[in-house]
Amino acid sequence: MSRIYLDNNATTALAPEVREAIDLCWAEPLNPSSTHYYGQKAKKMLMAARESIATSLGVKPRELIFTSGATEAMQLALPKGQILTTNLEHAATWENLQETKLIDCGLYGSPTAAAIQQAIDENTAAIVISAVNSETGAKANLEEIAAISGDIPLIVDGVQLLGKEPFHIPPGVDAMTFSAHKLHGPKGVGALFSRKKLKPKYRGGFQERGMRPGTENLAGIVGFAKALEISSRPHQMAELRDLFESLLPENAQINCSGPRICNTTNVYFEGIDGETLNILLDKEGVSASQGSACSSGSLEPSRVLLGMGYSRQRAKSSLRFSLSRYTTREEIERASKILNELTLSLSCSRCK
Amino acid sequence: MSRIYLDNNATTALAPEVREAIDLCWAEPLNPSSTHYYGQKAKKMLMAARESIATSLGVKPRELIFTSGATEAMQLALPKGQILTTNLEHAATWENLQETKLIDCGLYGSPTAAAIQQAIDENTAAIVISAVNSETGAKANLEEIAAISGDIPLIVDGVQLLGKEPFHIPPGVDAMTFSAHKLHGPKGVGALFSRKKLKPKYRGGFQERGMRPGTENLAGIVGFAKALEISSRPHQMAELRDLFESLLPENAQINCSGPRICNTTNVYFEGIDGETLNILLDKEGVSASQGSACSSGSLEPSRVLLGMGYSRQRAKSSLRFSLSRYTTREEIERASKILNELTLSLSCSRCK
Repeated sequence: MSRIYLDNNATTALAPEVREAIDLCWAEPLNPSSTHYYGQKAKKMLMAARESIATSLGVKPRELIFTSGATEAMQLALPKGQILTTNLEHAATWENLQETKLIDCGLYGSPTAAAIQQAIDENTAAIVISAVNSETGAKANLEEIAAISGDIPLIVDGVQLLGKEPFHIPPGVDAMTFSAHKLHGPKGVGALFSRKKLKPKYRGGFQERGMRPGTENLAGIVGFAKALEISSRPHQMAELRDLFESLLPENAQINCSGPRICNTTNVYFEGIDGETLNILLDKEGVSASQGSACSSGSLEPSRVLLGMGYSRQRAKSSLRFSLSRYTTREEIERASKILNELTLSLSCSRCK
Repeated sequence: MSRIYLDNNATTALAPEVREAIDLCWAEPLNPSSTHYYGQKAKKMLMAARESIATSLGVKPRELIFTSGATEAMQLALPKGQILTTNLEHAATWENLQETKLIDCGLYGSPTAAAIQQAIDENTAAIVISAVNSETGAKANLEEIAAISGDIPLIVDGVQLLGKEPFHIPPGVDAMTFSAHKLHGPKGVGALFSRKKLKPKYRGGFQERGMRPGTENLAGIVGFAKALEISSRPHQMAELRDLFESLLPENAQINCSGPRICNTTNVYFEGIDGETLNILLDKEGVSASQGSACSSGSLEPSRVLLGMGYSRQRAKSSLRFSLSRYTTREEIERASKILNELTLSLSCSRCK
């Protein structure tokens, strides 16, 4: 039996089309900074990839800066001063914030435009939020939030949105971060959309108009563009996620009451230890997770679930399942069967 | 006729074996931070790659930090305070130095241990040098320099050394930077050897023991390890580079009088405009360069050649040719023929 991978918010396998696109970059020595034949070819490929991503996002090519990933992209975007944000942000943002004012999201799981508007004060240097929460899939209403942010820079972690739903970056968003490996692109490449020209964190070559020096990861960038391009194809993540939820055991409850992205479900299994369940699922060939991979290894229950107001006990009894466009109905049905058997056996052994 | 690529110090094509190694990383969703089957598999692959590179360099696996490239690696390594260095460093170093004391290398092209020893004073916070100069191939005597650096941190740009000659990092070297794409590995991945634990530039996940957060570029790192592994195979770069030099036109002179790495030659063509020659070579299918790709597009003559003491006129009449392990005798002979024809025709047209 092949394994069932339901941890696509942690990372995804490379799409075959992306692999092909990358292979074309690797057959030749392509450095976009070189002036010769290969350099010119590389420069054209880089431009085409940038244009393709920019078109998809509805922004200008020059507003995109390629980075090594979303963590680096967020560092480039984060300003100094008091940041209006939530306590549900990913570690790549959260661990870098110094002065914050926190908006309480509650069980809704994401900040509303009204809550943000109310929290803005004279000290607010920027608003930093996630378009989609990586652990619960909670989806912020970007259009509404962008409309009320006014002159205050609005910086959005777009990692878990890109590739799952088509969108254009709304005019009120000042910066937005992305990662290719969450949408069947390669690891090691991300992008920052920034409406304004940024100061580089360090200097070197003149790549990315001096904002991000270092030889461009051409294969990664071309792969990123291809991954985004094919993400617009029809998929059935929403139907299969809903099917998965309809097949959950009786003791299961969904964490997060607000709107969610199509591929994610975070489930509380009452009376069951999440870590044990996750290990048993893995043994049976189903990969899920207890939270963000970047925080895994931590013995603490999910900071996000606690931050929403769920109890430590509930957080410790919860697992995240995240689908991809390649997830099949057969996989969902098989995973649900395994999940039901395991939760039943764990509940029974607890009763004895 | 196939093209002849003699700009391998700018970037290299991916080796077929590296491509195969990378492909294995891409068939599955491998995030080393995940705790499940795929995460454990990813973690093992990451550890094996780190161990392989560390063994090759004669250092401990925990002393290697993977980065997005050598530019980023150098930023992690550079300390504050007065840096004893040369004016021949690559832009990734040079553009980031604030307070410097410069050692004059002259036509020798690299700093000697004696010159460094003499220049060290009570203000020296660190010594920063290149193992091999990217434009001339000038090779520093690392063992000698490491032996005299004493308590002063010695930071080495190792980008153009790695993969060309086998070496162990000498005990006196405190940090050393590397890039995979200069040795037929992928772009977008580099490594920093650091004897001491470093403060990260930003926070996020706990990857690279917290020193460099962000999902690991597993395919890139595995590809890097494979590229380094196969670089130990026999090659004939030295013979072919020497053959190339023996076949140079009469008006040619080698820039750099000191020891050089096996694959690089920087040539002054008396009475000929380097840019014109480079463009004509490219038209005839030979890729060379006027200097570091990271500085290309600049209208100024090479900062390195000027820094060595060569005249602006000589710098403007010079080209870099850099071979790879895949360069063939037939290519060198063909390139030399083209070069001789072009320089003859350019010299004649000048005489008329």
